[in-house]
Amino acid sequence: MDVFNLEKKFALLKEYYSPKIVAELNGQYLKIAKLKGPFIWHAHEKEDELFYVLKGKLTIHFRDGVKELNAGDCLCIKKGVEHKPVAQDEVWVVLFEPKSTLNTGNKEGELTKNHLDWI
Amino acid sequence: MDVFNLEKKFALLKEYYSPKIVAELNGQYLKIAKLKGPFIWHAHEKEDELFYVLKGKLTIHFRDGVKELNAGDCLCIKKGVEHKPVAQDEVWVVLFEPKSTLNTGNKEGELTKNHLDWI
Repeated sequence: MDVFNLEKKFALLKEYYSPKIVAELNGQYLKIAKLKGPFIWHAHEKEDELFYVLKGKLTIHFRDGVKELNAGDCLCIKKGVEHKPVAQDEVWVVLFEPKSTLNTGNKEGELTKNHLDWI
Repeated sequence: MDVFNLEKKFALLKEYYSPKIVAELNGQYLKIAKLKGPFIWHAHEKEDELFYVLKGKLTIHFRDGVKELNAGDCLCIKKGVEHKPVAQDEVWVVLFEPKSTLNTGNKEGELTKNHLDWI
């Protein structure tokens, strides 16, 4: 596998809430996503999820409160925990999670990306 | 788990080549390490390893060539591949790998960190 630059990968990404794969290792994917606007409430029943914000401010709502992530901030969301990401303005987020992880978790619907492409 | 800032975690890290854990998820650790100087040739027999350089320039030697990672660059090293990281000046690197991964891989010795602390 070759060296790749995260910012350059983000520059190729045009759609919001459409994660793309940038690396695969040990049954996990490193993914990148641009977010803008609110996402839906969901949980991942079997997978913990790591958010790492590269640009912008990401608000993540939980049933018992709200957490804000600015550039350079990380948050690990444990499996089963309901959350709803909201990006007031454009946010660049890096995700690390098992290959099995669906973007909408237990709330499959029109926002679900069943097939993820590499970028 | 709470929000944490990667740069602030690095500010707490004093020793070179002494990875610390910043998150645990799905049987994997997210770790940070400061590197300066040459490390040893080694391979991880069972684990792929992801390097993400946050600051500085990291040179990774392979038996068939050399790769250079600058800030923002990532490289996934597949299991079994011999490599030797060299940091001319201080480098800040984020590592994502299974909890079982030893820093010196198959070359256990005085540089091996058998116990990793959180930071």
